[in-house]
Amino acid sequence: VETNRDRLACDLAVSADSSQGSEDQPVLCEALRGLCGLQIDVRSASADLHSGVMGGVAPNAAHALVAILGSMRDAEGRVLVEGFYDDVAPLGAEERRALATVPDDTEDTARAAGIRALSGEPGFTPRERNWARPTLEVNGLWGGYAGEGLKTIIPCEAHAKVTCRLVPDQEPRRVLALLRGHVEQHAPAEVEVRTVPFAGRSDPYRIPADHPAMVAAGRVLTALYGRAPLLVRSGATVPLPAILRRSLGVYTVGFGFGLRDEHIHAPDEFIRLASLEKGRRAFCMLLEELAR
Amino acid sequence: VETNRDRLACDLAVSADSSQGSEDQPVLCEALRGLCGLQIDVRSASADLHSGVMGGVAPNAAHALVAILGSMRDAEGRVLVEGFYDDVAPLGAEERRALATVPDDTEDTARAAGIRALSGEPGFTPRERNWARPTLEVNGLWGGYAGEGLKTIIPCEAHAKVTCRLVPDQEPRRVLALLRGHVEQHAPAEVEVRTVPFAGRSDPYRIPADHPAMVAAGRVLTALYGRAPLLVRSGATVPLPAILRRSLGVYTVGFGFGLRDEHIHAPDEFIRLASLEKGRRAFCMLLEELAR
Repeated sequence: VETNRDRLACDLAVSADSSQGSEDQPVLCEALRGLCGLQIDVRSASADLHSGVMGGVAPNAAHALVAILGSMRDAEGRVLVEGFYDDVAPLGAEERRALATVPDDTEDTARAAGIRALSGEPGFTPRERNWARPTLEVNGLWGGYAGEGLKTIIPCEAHAKVTCRLVPDQEPRRVLALLRGHVEQHAPAEVEVRTVPFAGRSDPYRIPADHPAMVAAGRVLTALYGRAPLLVRSGATVPLPAILRRSLGVYTVGFGFGLRDEHIHAPDEFIRLASLEKGRRAFCMLLEELAR
Repeated sequence: VETNRDRLACDLAVSADSSQGSEDQPVLCEALRGLCGLQIDVRSASADLHSGVMGGVAPNAAHALVAILGSMRDAEGRVLVEGFYDDVAPLGAEERRALATVPDDTEDTARAAGIRALSGEPGFTPRERNWARPTLEVNGLWGGYAGEGLKTIIPCEAHAKVTCRLVPDQEPRRVLALLRGHVEQHAPAEVEVRTVPFAGRSDPYRIPADHPAMVAAGRVLTALYGRAPLLVRSGATVPLPAILRRSLGVYTVGFGFGLRDEHIHAPDEFIRLASLEKGRRAFCMLLEELAR
């Protein structure tokens, strides 16, 4: 995008990577979270050690990893990395009121996913935590013996993948630097710890709710569904809107017709023919509305 | 053994599962550590979740596992499970003096194993920690994504294998009960946690240094090497001596000729022909000495 700025010059981008609330309820998405993350590699010896022969004297890479990860997030989900929340734009009372007007089906979604109880940062509603607050998650961890039964070793290496979802005005590069600094500072002295940032990084994105394209899209959706769209956010990440905003100076309006049960990103992802038809009409109407 | 008590009745057992200090220095081993352990299985949802769509509201099995493991052992290696040290026979001043007379090559062994610095329970020497204090080690842990690059999931399961080395007068069954109780008590409420004890369990074992068989073995080794054996312990576990002591009421004297560099338990384990020859002579001498 940066290399072809002149050729790409425009007033607005429209992205179909968005969704309906339901077949009867349109939504307009005003915010996407950003993303950054790293892998943590711990080494405590050149090979796995006998836990009898060396137990009590040799450092254990798995325990060192546990100590590092335990220092990054508390039991409730609050991120403990110093400075992590510094650039997070505070949620105003007006904004919280607006978020609260959107019906929240998080409990239903959680139940369907086999979750026993919701968890997350105290002091915020589930919607606020998912849409407007940053998170830190261990996506995977491994080290030592994972086969049947027991193997009495002291593992010489342990690894974890950690990613953060970001919100305005956090910058992925700055958050990565904070994460790496935190890991270095909390690495036990008796082990070697390396951090490797992931190439996949994205700024958080937000479009003003009263942007002319949002108003136009809202008019189209209202005409199409006979019902005004709800203003929502997404906890997920789409890198392109932030890239276009930064490189071309334009906003992207999300205008899509996926539904939640369509196995998004899975090998058996699908879209209903009715949604394709609805989208075809909607895009034509949007072009006319924007031209006006 | 229990089923064949009468057929196995005897005064003493002799086990070749022991070793030399070096080719010039005999040792007699007076203690072996015991063993018990369990697998910890954490589940937080029925499938891995999208860390954008559910991040901030869904519990994370990996973080729950980290919290549990972090509660079991502190940064220095002290076990935090309540009651874990209750049955540990205290190390007397005389005993500590005796342990301190054995040359300690732990630093060299650690350096050869690529260890940056020793670690372990404060207040005890490396020898004491390895020979006479119990330990708790994570032998392996896994959960979530462990492939190349990043995958932004909230893992729905995470697992760890944990074993303890035990010393007199700890009992494996009692320690297992303490471990399971601890895990239950520290399991975050929003996840399911199951513990599965390993079948492999062993009592710690100790033979009095002045037991007649130890005296006899000492005489043989002194004659053979021209040098008195050092009285040592082992941080490792051999279940049989404790089983024979419990079922038949007899002690086992360790009388073996392995050397430390012989890749014990590895596929390329070996023994020097000179050690076989030494052992052949030593066992004949021991039978004569015991008969006397």
